[in-house]
Amino acid sequence: MKALRFENNQLKLADIAKPLKEPEAVVRVLKSGICNTDLEIVRGYAGFSGTLGHEFVGVVEAATDATDLIGKRVVGEINAGCGRCENCLQGESRHCPERTVLGIVGRDGAHAEFLNLPSRNLLEVPDAVSNQQAVFVEPLAAAFGITEQVEIFPETKVAVIGDGKLGNLCAQSLSLSSRRVRLVGKHKEKLALARARNIETVLLENALKLKRNFDVVVEASGSESGFNLALDLLKPRGKLVLKSTFHGAASWQAWRVVVDEITIVGSRCGRFQPALDLLENNSVDVESLISEEFSLSGGVKAIEKAGRKGVMKILLSMAN
Amino acid sequence: MKALRFENNQLKLADIAKPLKEPEAVVRVLKSGICNTDLEIVRGYAGFSGTLGHEFVGVVEAATDATDLIGKRVVGEINAGCGRCENCLQGESRHCPERTVLGIVGRDGAHAEFLNLPSRNLLEVPDAVSNQQAVFVEPLAAAFGITEQVEIFPETKVAVIGDGKLGNLCAQSLSLSSRRVRLVGKHKEKLALARARNIETVLLENALKLKRNFDVVVEASGSESGFNLALDLLKPRGKLVLKSTFHGAASWQAWRVVVDEITIVGSRCGRFQPALDLLENNSVDVESLISEEFSLSGGVKAIEKAGRKGVMKILLSMAN
Repeated sequence: MKALRFENNQLKLADIAKPLKEPEAVVRVLKSGICNTDLEIVRGYAGFSGTLGHEFVGVVEAATDATDLIGKRVVGEINAGCGRCENCLQGESRHCPERTVLGIVGRDGAHAEFLNLPSRNLLEVPDAVSNQQAVFVEPLAAAFGITEQVEIFPETKVAVIGDGKLGNLCAQSLSLSSRRVRLVGKHKEKLALARARNIETVLLENALKLKRNFDVVVEASGSESGFNLALDLLKPRGKLVLKSTFHGAASWQAWRVVVDEITIVGSRCGRFQPALDLLENNSVDVESLISEEFSLSGGVKAIEKAGRKGVMKILLSMAN
Repeated sequence: MKALRFENNQLKLADIAKPLKEPEAVVRVLKSGICNTDLEIVRGYAGFSGTLGHEFVGVVEAATDATDLIGKRVVGEINAGCGRCENCLQGESRHCPERTVLGIVGRDGAHAEFLNLPSRNLLEVPDAVSNQQAVFVEPLAAAFGITEQVEIFPETKVAVIGDGKLGNLCAQSLSLSSRRVRLVGKHKEKLALARARNIETVLLENALKLKRNFDVVVEASGSESGFNLALDLLKPRGKLVLKSTFHGAASWQAWRVVVDEITIVGSRCGRFQPALDLLENNSVDVESLISEEFSLSGGVKAIEKAGRKGVMKILLSMAN
């Protein structure tokens, strides 16, 4: 089968054997989405080698331990735990020390014709959710997961820093709980996507006018300067939600966190079911975030495109 | 009156006018304690100029708006807010943007014969609490305050990094809630003080054997390496309580906080009343932390001594 792989520091479309790791399920991928994590891997930051991709929608082709799933359209939780450790037994397999992560850690990913995942990782997609929508379940779950870590009330003043895909999904998700969400970014055309959803936006150059104004700030820009801006925007005793995994040692003023008694909440993944519900109810819009769709055979070009300025979500379609 | 002052980048004992800032109370200081913050100010890190000191016990000499306090032995909350802003009205005057802080921000401090504070900042000291004990109320409140920010249960695994005064008080305070507290430090004689209180201790060089072992880690060493060790010791989804205000830009791996979904809780001050109660009930021992007591006139020497290796708390006594 065809797969978009990163090996020996090279990105290429390869022909590899179809995955058949019994008793795991085999999923025929319909569409996959390119995430910034894919780009970081290709830049050599993440130490992963194999098939890229962790955002997908597909159809179950085989599942020896869950035959009722066969033929169903599914999305899949990307962390596969050992199933036996303390974390896994508490339902926190995303923190299993032995975990593999689809297309990120020790497990071939979704930019391929087929993939393997444990059947317990799969969730059926409701008919009302299109393939284009379903491919956003993973990043949407990560964005909506914030609301399960930090209390957000209608009057909670929230700023989201970063107008990319993740920032947009965070702003939309948080707007479901608070009337006072602002998205901060430097790209007018990206901010416009949020304004179309009635989210107030602020150009980065004006953000410091709102110093010490927010109860919660979400850093989703992936940059060190975004983190320092977040500290500037927070009220004392505010909460900084750290979403983006910027690499390299970041520099920060730890004393500010202590003096202002800030809480920093590291936030990676979220549960898939609430995200599927949001899409089924049309509570968030993901389709306007799609910049372009490529066929899997155009995968190398697609990754290159995803890294360009101004581009939002790039999808790969296996059917093409 | 005599006062230990830091002015024009110089530490000296000076003769200045007795403070009489009506309607604030005038307190005759009995004893004061030297804190690491005093040392940071003297090193020029904090931009403060004036009389040093924020840990004290004294007797109220004048208080036009609270005459019942006159003659009473008191300790005092060190943050003096404007009394009118949103923070002050919510009882959070320590986050008032206009606040002064005794001996730290815009207000002469406690290493002097007399000091001024608003009478609402003063708390009477119970008879059962000695002057030597009472002078520890401020740092003990800061240590015990952690238990009001982070839930600690009897089985919560807690590590405190830093075997200095603050680390010791944190370890003692947290041991009142959890049976599983360990103090990590590099000074055998300082660790011994904690062991005498039945707290388990770990030498720094052995700490990494306990990687990913703790639910809560308190960083009280004041160093960047302490912060990184804290990340090493925490379990996924653990809580890192940041107590020490290390200066300069610190370097850290932000992605670790995201991937392990760590929460970092900045923690500065605590309420005084619970700390007074702990001393009254002899729930914590502070007297064994006293290394030496100087007279106020020996203040310059006392500060110098407080900065030496192996030294714990240095007190100044105004009565001498």
